[in-house]
Amino acid sequence: MFTINDNFTLLPSSYLFSEVAARIKAYSESHPDAEIIRMGIGDVTRPLCPAVIDALHKAVDDESAMDTFHGYGPEQGYEFLASKIAAHDYRDRGIDIGEDEIFISDGAKSDTGNIGDILSTANRIAVTDPVYPVYVDTNVMAGRGGHLLPDGHWSKIEYLPCTQENGFVPDLPATAPDIIYLCYPNNPTGTVLDRAALTMWVEYCRKNGCLLLFDAAYEAFVRTPGIPRSIYEIDGAREVAIEFRSFSKTAGFTGIRLGYTVVPKELKGLDNNGNMVRLNPLWRRRQTTKFNGASYITQRGAEALYTPDGQSQSRETVDYYLGNAAVMLDGLRHAGYSCVGGTDSPYIWLKAADGMSSWEFFDHLLDRYHIVGTPGSGFGPAGEGYFRLTAFNTRENTIKAIERLKS
Amino acid sequence: MFTINDNFTLLPSSYLFSEVAARIKAYSESHPDAEIIRMGIGDVTRPLCPAVIDALHKAVDDESAMDTFHGYGPEQGYEFLASKIAAHDYRDRGIDIGEDEIFISDGAKSDTGNIGDILSTANRIAVTDPVYPVYVDTNVMAGRGGHLLPDGHWSKIEYLPCTQENGFVPDLPATAPDIIYLCYPNNPTGTVLDRAALTMWVEYCRKNGCLLLFDAAYEAFVRTPGIPRSIYEIDGAREVAIEFRSFSKTAGFTGIRLGYTVVPKELKGLDNNGNMVRLNPLWRRRQTTKFNGASYITQRGAEALYTPDGQSQSRETVDYYLGNAAVMLDGLRHAGYSCVGGTDSPYIWLKAADGMSSWEFFDHLLDRYHIVGTPGSGFGPAGEGYFRLTAFNTRENTIKAIERLKS
Repeated sequence: MFTINDNFTLLPSSYLFSEVAARIKAYSESHPDAEIIRMGIGDVTRPLCPAVIDALHKAVDDESAMDTFHGYGPEQGYEFLASKIAAHDYRDRGIDIGEDEIFISDGAKSDTGNIGDILSTANRIAVTDPVYPVYVDTNVMAGRGGHLLPDGHWSKIEYLPCTQENGFVPDLPATAPDIIYLCYPNNPTGTVLDRAALTMWVEYCRKNGCLLLFDAAYEAFVRTPGIPRSIYEIDGAREVAIEFRSFSKTAGFTGIRLGYTVVPKELKGLDNNGNMVRLNPLWRRRQTTKFNGASYITQRGAEALYTPDGQSQSRETVDYYLGNAAVMLDGLRHAGYSCVGGTDSPYIWLKAADGMSSWEFFDHLLDRYHIVGTPGSGFGPAGEGYFRLTAFNTRENTIKAIERLKS
Repeated sequence: MFTINDNFTLLPSSYLFSEVAARIKAYSESHPDAEIIRMGIGDVTRPLCPAVIDALHKAVDDESAMDTFHGYGPEQGYEFLASKIAAHDYRDRGIDIGEDEIFISDGAKSDTGNIGDILSTANRIAVTDPVYPVYVDTNVMAGRGGHLLPDGHWSKIEYLPCTQENGFVPDLPATAPDIIYLCYPNNPTGTVLDRAALTMWVEYCRKNGCLLLFDAAYEAFVRTPGIPRSIYEIDGAREVAIEFRSFSKTAGFTGIRLGYTVVPKELKGLDNNGNMVRLNPLWRRRQTTKFNGASYITQRGAEALYTPDGQSQSRETVDYYLGNAAVMLDGLRHAGYSCVGGTDSPYIWLKAADGMSSWEFFDHLLDRYHIVGTPGSGFGPAGEGYFRLTAFNTRENTIKAIERLKS
C-alpha cells in the first residue's frame, strides 16, 4: 500500500487567511449592512500601471501570430528580463549580480517554498517570531519541524522573538541553526534592518556556515536612506545568502504571478562526503526539472517596469500605498495605539488594545469598526497580542477606517 | 555547516534537451547554410486561437482598472475555470469529477514534479521505459531512486519496458511498486492504451494498493473511438488515480503556462499509524502553502477554450498537428522505417535505421537530412535504438522533412 508524507498530518488544519475569510463571511451574513474595510490579507488593489498594460497587450499579440509566437521559454526566465533585472535591480546600485544568478519564477511564495528541495532535511532552521507562515509550514512538510509544542512552536525550529522588548529586532540565534530565514522589510511587523544589523547577520552566517534565506519581497517600499534593499549590499553576502524578490508588491503582479530568486555562484553547502557543492547549479536543476518557466506574457509585462515610464509609474503606486501607511500610522498613534512599521513597508504592526488577544482584537475591530486586519498570533506565538494592518486599500477607505478608529 | 540534498548530486549533469540544443548549435555554427527542420522538443508552433487571444486582451484590460483588477486568486484556480473544466472535460463525457477535485496550476510539469511532496519518500516507484524524464528525475531528487546502475536504470525504481517485443504495451509490474506512473497517449512513443488495458491497470492498483499517477497531457489528440481520454472513464479509478492535464498541447499554452490536476475525494493513502488519509486535502494544503495560483490572465484565456469558438478553433489546431503526424507516418513507412504512434498523438516513435544507436541516428539525421529529433535513449535504456519525432512543425516543413527522408 502506498504511503503519504506523514509530515502533512502534523500541520494544524486551519490556515490563517482561511480562518480570517471564514469570520468575515460569517459576520457579513449576520450583518449585511456593515460596510467592511479590509486591511487584512496583503494583496494590492491598484491596477497594473499603463506601461505594463501596454506591454501585456503587445505580448498577447505576439502569441497570436506564427512569427512572434513564444512557446516554452527558458525555465529560468527570458534573457530580455533577466538582463534588465541584473542591470537595474543590482548593477546600477553597485551590486555584483550576474544574469546567470537570477532565476525568474511564478512568484516568491513558490520559491521560498520550493527552495527546501535542494537542501538536506537534516538542516536545523531558525525563523523570526512572528514570521510569514510559509517558511515554517514548508519546513514542517519536509520533516524539519519536529513536533508541535503546546506553546505553538515546532520542536526542531529555533524561533527568534521580535517583540516590544527587543524593539522587534531579532537577536542572533542561541543554538546553531543551519538555515536562517530573514524577511526585510519585514512581514508582518513592517520593520526594517539597517546596514549594521544586516552586516551582523551576514557575518554570523559566514562564521557559522549558515545559509541565509533573505526574502526581499518588500524592498520597493524602502525610502529611508541607508536601509539596504538587497542583502547583497552587504559585503560577503554572496557567500551565504539566497535572495527572493517579487513583482507582487513592487508592481501589483499578485494576480499575474512573477518573482525571482538570486543564487550567487560563490554560495556552497556541504554534501554527505564533506565536499562543498555550489547551490546555483542545484537550483537550476530543480527549476529545469520541476518548473517550466513563468508566463511569457507576464515576463514581457515585467520588462516594461524597467523603462522610464514603468519605473515612474510603479514608483507612484508604491508611493500611494506608503501614503496610506503614513495616514494609518499618524491616525493610529493619535488614537493611542502603539505601533511599528509603515514607513519603509506597507505593513503596520500594532499592539492590541486593552490587553486583548489577537483574535479578540480581530473580532473587536470587525464588530465595532467593521475593519478587518490580521491577528498577529497567526504569524507565530510572539505575535500574540499584536495585529497586522496593511496599506493596500484605497486612500478613501484608509482615511475612513482611521476616522472610525479615532472616533 | 548547512547541508545540501545529496540526491541532487546523484543525477547525471546533462539533461536530454540541453544536449540536443548543444549539438544543434554546434552543427549550425559549422554548417551555417543548413536549413534545419526541428522535430525534436515537444513544443507547439501554432499561435493561440482567436477566442483565446480575445479573452487574454480582455483579461489584460481587467488588470488595468480598479473595479476589474484581480490580485491574488484562489491557489487552486478560479471557480469560473474549474467549473468549465468539470463540466466540459468530465461531466459532459459522463465522468463524475467535482470542481473541488480540480487543482489548476501553472502546468503539468510542475504538478507531476511536485506531487511527490505529499507522498512518503519510502514509496517504491514504477515507470515505463522509455519514459518522460521528469517522473524519474524528480523521484531521484526526493530519494526514491536509489543509485544509478550501469545499465542506466535506478536501483530502487521498477522499469516496465515498452519495446517492439511487447508492442510497446507495458506488462504489469513484477515487483510490488507503491506508485505507478502512466502517460497515455504516451510520451515518447505516441502509443495509446485501450479501455481493456487501462482497466487492467486500475484493477491492479486497486488490488495492490498502488497509486496511479496518470498523465493525460495529450488526451486532446485522441481521435480513435473507444480510446479513453481520461483515466476516470475506467470504473474504480477514482479510488486509485491522480490525473494530470495540460493546456500546453491541447491549446498551445506552452508559453503562457496552465494545467490542472485531479485528485478525487475517494483516493486515500496510508499514514505511519496505519490510518487511511485522503489525498485531496493534502494536495490542497501543498498548493495553498507552496503555490499562489496561476496567472489570472492565462486562466481567462483557458476559459475561452470552453466556448463554441474556442472548442472548434482549438480542435482545428490539434487536427493540424494530427495532419502533420499522418504525413510523417505515411512518409516514414514508405521510406522503410518501422514506427508507432502518430494517430492519437503528436509523437512518432521510430526504430533507428541500420542498427544505429539513438545518438548515432540523431547525428545521422542532422548531418544528412538537417532534421532534428529526440534520441530515444534520452527517455530510458529501453529507448536505445529508437527516435522520437514530433508533429509540431508547420505542414510545409513537415512535408519538406519527409521528402528529404524519402529521397
